[in-house]
Amino acid sequence: MSVAETGPKDSGRRARGGADARRAQRQKPKLVQNPYIVRKIPLVTVLDEEGLTTIENNADTILQEIGIEFRDEPEALELWKAAGADVKGTRIRFPKGLPRSIIQKSAPREYIQHARNPERSVRIGGDATVFAPVYGPPFIRNLDEGRRYATIEDFRNFVKLAYMSPSIHHSGGTVCEPVDLPVNKRHLDMVYSHIKLSDKPFMGSVTAPERAADTVEMAKIVFGEKFLETNTVITSLINANSPMVWDGTMLGAMKVYARANQASITTPFILAGAMSPVTAAGTLAQVLAEVLSGAATSQLYKPGAPVIFGVFASSISMQSGAPTFGTPEPTLVSLAAAQIARRLGIPFRTGGSLCASKVPDAQAAYESAQTLLPTLQAGTNFVLHGAGWLEGGLASGYEKFIMDADQLGMMQTLAKGIDLTENGQALSAIREVGPGSHFLGCSHTQANFETAFYRSSIADNNSFEQWLAEGEQDAAQRANKIWKRMLQDYEAPALDPAIDEALLAFLAKRKAAAPDSNV
Amino acid sequence: MSVAETGPKDSGRRARGGADARRAQRQKPKLVQNPYIVRKIPLVTVLDEEGLTTIENNADTILQEIGIEFRDEPEALELWKAAGADVKGTRIRFPKGLPRSIIQKSAPREYIQHARNPERSVRIGGDATVFAPVYGPPFIRNLDEGRRYATIEDFRNFVKLAYMSPSIHHSGGTVCEPVDLPVNKRHLDMVYSHIKLSDKPFMGSVTAPERAADTVEMAKIVFGEKFLETNTVITSLINANSPMVWDGTMLGAMKVYARANQASITTPFILAGAMSPVTAAGTLAQVLAEVLSGAATSQLYKPGAPVIFGVFASSISMQSGAPTFGTPEPTLVSLAAAQIARRLGIPFRTGGSLCASKVPDAQAAYESAQTLLPTLQAGTNFVLHGAGWLEGGLASGYEKFIMDADQLGMMQTLAKGIDLTENGQALSAIREVGPGSHFLGCSHTQANFETAFYRSSIADNNSFEQWLAEGEQDAAQRANKIWKRMLQDYEAPALDPAIDEALLAFLAKRKAAAPDSNV
Repeated sequence: MSVAETGPKDSGRRARGGADARRAQRQKPKLVQNPYIVRKIPLVTVLDEEGLTTIENNADTILQEIGIEFRDEPEALELWKAAGADVKGTRIRFPKGLPRSIIQKSAPREYIQHARNPERSVRIGGDATVFAPVYGPPFIRNLDEGRRYATIEDFRNFVKLAYMSPSIHHSGGTVCEPVDLPVNKRHLDMVYSHIKLSDKPFMGSVTAPERAADTVEMAKIVFGEKFLETNTVITSLINANSPMVWDGTMLGAMKVYARANQASITTPFILAGAMSPVTAAGTLAQVLAEVLSGAATSQLYKPGAPVIFGVFASSISMQSGAPTFGTPEPTLVSLAAAQIARRLGIPFRTGGSLCASKVPDAQAAYESAQTLLPTLQAGTNFVLHGAGWLEGGLASGYEKFIMDADQLGMMQTLAKGIDLTENGQALSAIREVGPGSHFLGCSHTQANFETAFYRSSIADNNSFEQWLAEGEQDAAQRANKIWKRMLQDYEAPALDPAIDEALLAFLAKRKAAAPDSNV
Repeated sequence: MSVAETGPKDSGRRARGGADARRAQRQKPKLVQNPYIVRKIPLVTVLDEEGLTTIENNADTILQEIGIEFRDEPEALELWKAAGADVKGTRIRFPKGLPRSIIQKSAPREYIQHARNPERSVRIGGDATVFAPVYGPPFIRNLDEGRRYATIEDFRNFVKLAYMSPSIHHSGGTVCEPVDLPVNKRHLDMVYSHIKLSDKPFMGSVTAPERAADTVEMAKIVFGEKFLETNTVITSLINANSPMVWDGTMLGAMKVYARANQASITTPFILAGAMSPVTAAGTLAQVLAEVLSGAATSQLYKPGAPVIFGVFASSISMQSGAPTFGTPEPTLVSLAAAQIARRLGIPFRTGGSLCASKVPDAQAAYESAQTLLPTLQAGTNFVLHGAGWLEGGLASGYEKFIMDADQLGMMQTLAKGIDLTENGQALSAIREVGPGSHFLGCSHTQANFETAFYRSSIADNNSFEQWLAEGEQDAAQRANKIWKRMLQDYEAPALDPAIDEALLAFLAKRKAAAPDSNV
């Protein structure tokens, strides 16, 4: 399953039809999309060979001596028994090296997640990095309304914003939790929104195995049943119930996806000090044990199904027990976990733009930047929570989304590294200008004017006087205007009307099949 | 001049005398000071051997073909002529490799800058990182007053705040520009404030050679004339007038310091696109040429005088020409310049907590964090602008200072890397807790309670409800309270009254020697 030769494609415009559309195109800003990142800068590491071996040995010890709980999923117990593990009740203890060898035998090192627009397909693994938006918050926050429960309208808004953000490569999953829809049916409208309102790849429902099955059915309507037999079009988030528990809901969803050839991100959800030891090395050993047991299970369900080594790394405040973000310890865990994942040989997910702050203030930004930069530097392949995360994941922030998306653009530029071509070396410019002059108008500067530096969409770099004259706005106030303008300018990507009808028919049928329920 | 064996000393409390002082000590928070950083995490790099060689060759080409202007400093021209350079007017062209060989022959790889409190002395170079506060702004900003011109009272306040900040290791220099004092005398009160109000190492005046000489005289009063003959107690900032010009003021100050055995930071001040080409590789070649010519000049003035490879790396907005900060391009320049400085073999300075934002908002924090983390990762030895920088260096921010100082603490923790001791591995905790439980009360957590995680002084990690109840404050509002409380709690470190009298007598004499002037 080598996909390394598949490079990302750049595309500055999208196909549109009709005179009206052409007129609209002239009036509205062109929709620029960056391809997923192919990292040119060196990886950043924190552990040497001896440290990595120590962590791996400790993970083996945990798997052998303590074992992992597999709850409410008898088939997993049977599969592990057959594979040679020691199964007592719901506790599985693993012979040394068994989960690793199962993973390395069949799990792909990288895979393509196809989007309905082939130009938006992404490679997950290797030297590629894919940014996806925030996942999971039940609340939203914006400057106009403050904080309130999220609705399906908010969900659609965040899908639209992600679709329009040049360096968000993936539409994500639960961009916010639409609590105005019944729990047992909302996944239908969520998945439909991703398909209808965006053409980027998306994530599937994992809150129940049958909802995962619905996601697969909808994907078949879009991509064709045959295509899914050999291709991956859904990547979904399978969280461990740390410490050392996989539950039936998550395993059941993973089973549905794996058997349909779709990808799972097996992710220990760690607030160190609560779900893992207070130390980085202890946390890493536990994380590795959990990932090894979970990812290997995906291979028992279906050898060859794509599976990602995930870790959500945070700590708690020792005073209050509250989760903290953007602090040094999770950075160390993320960087080391990336090294461990590379040695295991499957794609890696961590980080994003995490913060504890309730509002898009300096705390939010420091914490997010201190999470995001190491996320890129670690060589993370799939980055959930790339934009919009606020309040420890309790709120999706509209302004925060815009600010973070700008930072993702900066990461995209940073990952290109230093241009050492003749134009990059710019000796001609230095010769032309000489001592005591300036480069503002020299021919090299003019030739590189359009692409010279990353242009932030949100930063104010104007003079103090101009900033005063424009109302002394802070970044959040500027971001507020940007997301509103983007939603005004939004235009849905084309979708084959027959597919749309079939999807809507599927939604109607599934909604009619059971009464609304919030369980 | 090997000082590698001199490790930093930790100190949790300071000596005090008398019952009153002891009572005060009980009421006020203990003054904790962290030693300078000794980096345990791997260096982050962006260029390979071939890239580095390309930059070095291009710098040699610039030095040979274009040359560097040395203005208003005839002695430098004479010294370079004698050293074998091609001097025509004020333009010096250098035989290939000459500046490098002069530097490598005598400039120390690292040095100790002594503080009047020996526990606060810092090692500059090698695996050490020293954080100093913001340098240069003519304005201050705080939430109460907005932005206004800085005064000597502000200067004293920032010296006090730096003194009380655990991870600011150095008192810095022009923490703000006290524009209420005459230009030709303000340096006296500035240097005196650093000595009197702090016991951390400090920087000297560079605005005129005679002001540098005043700084040296004051240092002799504090440390003794004999001590200065063989020790460094001042590190000062010598900016190039980029592109490719050294001016007489800066060279004159450097000459005074070098001949007194004191350290200079030779720093190209670069807004790429204005003072250097718009590309990173072009900027790096020019920076290296400027540093080589400047640092070698320090060695011609006085072989063995400590000299630092500095680079202030920023870009301009191609739309407005305004400087931008926290963008990807300066990050690449800083990381690569650090590699180049290590190959040259002298200490390195770059970065800090730079931003373009006028206020301590999300923009300020994103930009500062995106500058600071790479600064640490580059292995930067001396970090100016570590705390307080706002508005492209036009304003020293009180709240920004507090926020940044907290981030410096995080960098200090990050630099320690992952603890792989038995306690760090924490297998006992994982064994004790087991699957499905939590680590909150386990004995390993309790044993590590005090030191487990970095504790932010400014982040709010409380529940949403508690945050609401406490008035929905953002980070800037919390920082506002913190700096005010710190200034209230401030107590000056002890200073020998005889030294203090001698300093004040020197100030009086020098102030009386000439009329006030703002030139």
